[in-house]
This record gives sequence, structure tokens and C-alpha cells, in this order.
Amino acid sequence: MLTNIVKNIAMTIVEVICNPRPGSFNLALSAQARDTLDGLGHTVILHDLYKEKFDPIMDAPELARSFSLDGQVQVYCRELAAADGVVIFHPDWWGQPPALLKGWVDRVFRQGVAYDLDGDDYSPKSWKPLLTGKKGLVFCTSDTGDKEMPRTLETLWTQCILGRCGMNAACHVMRDLRRTDPGVRRAWISFMVHTLEEWFPRKQGA
Amino acid sequence: MLTNIVKNIAMTIVEVICNPRPGSFNLALSAQARDTLDGLGHTVILHDLYKEKFDPIMDAPELARSFSLDGQVQVYCRELAAADGVVIFHPDWWGQPPALLKGWVDRVFRQGVAYDLDGDDYSPKSWKPLLTGKKGLVFCTSDTGDKEMPRTLETLWTQCILGRCGMNAACHVMRDLRRTDPGVRRAWISFMVHTLEEWFPRKQGA
Repeated sequence: MLTNIVKNIAMTIVEVICNPRPGSFNLALSAQARDTLDGLGHTVILHDLYKEKFDPIMDAPELARSFSLDGQVQVYCRELAAADGVVIFHPDWWGQPPALLKGWVDRVFRQGVAYDLDGDDYSPKSWKPLLTGKKGLVFCTSDTGDKEMPRTLETLWTQCILGRCGMNAACHVMRDLRRTDPGVRRAWISFMVHTLEEWFPRKQGA
Repeated sequence: MLTNIVKNIAMTIVEVICNPRPGSFNLALSAQARDTLDGLGHTVILHDLYKEKFDPIMDAPELARSFSLDGQVQVYCRELAAADGVVIFHPDWWGQPPALLKGWVDRVFRQGVAYDLDGDDYSPKSWKPLLTGKKGLVFCTSDTGDKEMPRTLETLWTQCILGRCGMNAACHVMRDLRRTDPGVRRAWISFMVHTLEEWFPRKQGA
């Protein structure tokens, strides 16, 4: 009985990791995030896009259809629609996510799932975000410093994708990864844990 | 003999189109661009990434290697290194290129092709652009208006990708595509033709 209550009040969070490099700091962050969210009493659905061999290509028939015929995309869409939040980990490749993660956005943040259109165009009058009330947190690692590259990742995730679909979103970029020592990395893990605790607080009974 | 001279003085331009939608305005622009560049006496190498079934996923072994084992990627890399310019056409998907085109960047703009590192990190001191002197032009179509979304496409292409590798780069976004009439589209094709003529001028003898 208590179990049911706990389940009902805990949050469900989709965690997405996209980094092909074994032993990457992204993978370490992602593993710690799952443990932290578990420890807070939440349900975590973890997807490692490289391990799951996700197909990132949105093709013409899928673009024309009002839903995807791909079973894996259908699962991702249902999970996104039902979740309380999304937590994403990826490296900075050219100021953007890797192609594989971009394809997850292209195919999963579909009309009918992430937004709807009340009309024929994408004007502010027509655009209806469908993920309002959900939370989206993105943690990126970057090999470049703060002043070498424009802060595109923050803009892309918070304004162009998650925020545009109504989510309360933040994107944190750990820069200069190759020049940081273990102490800085430990501090970054602590920062991430603290941020997760703030955004997805422990539920009563958990 | 004249043919050889013309070939020697004309430019070689890699044209990349990434849009799955048959009959898209992107495809029309791309076809017109090829004709224009042909007419100016240049050699155009055209790649339709959807038709060529390019695999956009940079995997762990490829990331670790100093070159790609994929024959198609090798061809794209050689062409990029040898070309005088690149012209790219794509739709705006979430303020970014589609995953398929992002994968072309991930896999083709490799170390040793687009940049090199004089050291272990990506600091400005280490970073050596390898595409200096080449020209890069990007034409995007977008369904959103000028004030609804941040201008991420321009920043990504000119500062984070092409410009960062030394190219003289510009990105032009045709916004509000769904709300434009045929006259505006014709004006946009004229603008593109004019831009191509300016960037890749007709060579003597062509």
C-alpha cells in the first residue's frame, strides 16, 4: 500500500545520454544522476541512445505522417508525454548536440507530442506547446572555453527546443573539460547533484 | 586544350542538400544553385544526403581514430579539403540543421580535415583551422518568423562550424516560408543567384 502511494507521488524522469566515448565524463555524470534521482524516490527511465542504436533520421514518410510508425520512437514519445521531466547529457559538438541526439529531438518532439498547431503555420498564434509544466535539465561537456565559442547550447535547449514546447528548462555547460583537474570535475558532479535535488525534490514518503 | 584551361581556373564547389520532403523549396533552391554555378563555369559536386543514405552517426571507434574507415566519409573529406567552396541547403529544425546534416558535419569536419590541434586541448592556442581561404554559403528555410526564434542558425554556421575552420562564411535564412507567396519565393531565388554570382564569380574563359 505504501509502495503504491510512493509511486503515485514520486516523479517520472526520462534520462537521455548521448556520448559514444567509453568512460566519458558524460557517462559518469549520467550514472550519478540516475543514482541521485533514484535516491530521491523518483522513477528514472534511462536511454543511452548509442547503446539503443536509435535511428536519428526523420525521413519523408515520417515527416508527412501525424505519427511515427517506428516502435522505438513511439515509446520515446509516450514516455516524454507522460514524464514529469527530462534530464539530458551530451558533449558539445560544434556548438550543438551530436547528430544522434539531434535526431531524437527531430523524431520525438513531434507535432501532437511536443507541440500542436492551431492553423497552417508556425506563427505564435498557431503554436501550442504541449509540454507545459514539465521540467527539462541539460548538462553538456565542452572542450572549449567560455570566451572561444558563442553560448549556442544554452539558447538551443532553453529557447529553441525545451522552452519552446512549454518546459521549464535550463542548460548547464561544463567548459574546458580537457583542461580541468579531478577536483573541478568532482565539484561539477556536486553541482549537478544539487541542481537535481532542487529541480526534482524528494517526495514525502520516499 | 581550352577545356583544360577552363577547368584549371574554374572553382570546384561542393553542394550539399538535406531535406527529405519531395518538392521542397530547399530542393528547388539547390537545383537552381547547381545550374547557376554550372553557368558560371564552376565544377559542382552535388550531394543529396537523404538520397545517398549517408550514415550520420559518429561512433566510438571513428571518434578515436585519426581518420574514418567509411569510404563515403573519406570521399566527403577529400572533396571538402580540395574544394574552393561549399554551398549548403537545409530546413530549420529546432534552430539547427536536421540530424542527417549535423552528422555530415560531425563526421566530415574531422581533425586533420577541417582543423588540427597543436596540443592536447581545444584552446585558441592549439586550434588550427584547415579550411582557410575557402568559402561557405548556407541557405536555410524556416517556418518561423524573424522575432519568434533566436538567430541560432547564423551563429552555428558562421561562428561554430565554417568560420571556426577558417572559412569565409555566411548563412541566409528565409523565414516564414509557409506564409510567403510565390513572388517572395521568386525574389528569394534571385537573391540566392545574385549571392552565388558575387561569391563565386564567373572565371575568365568560362
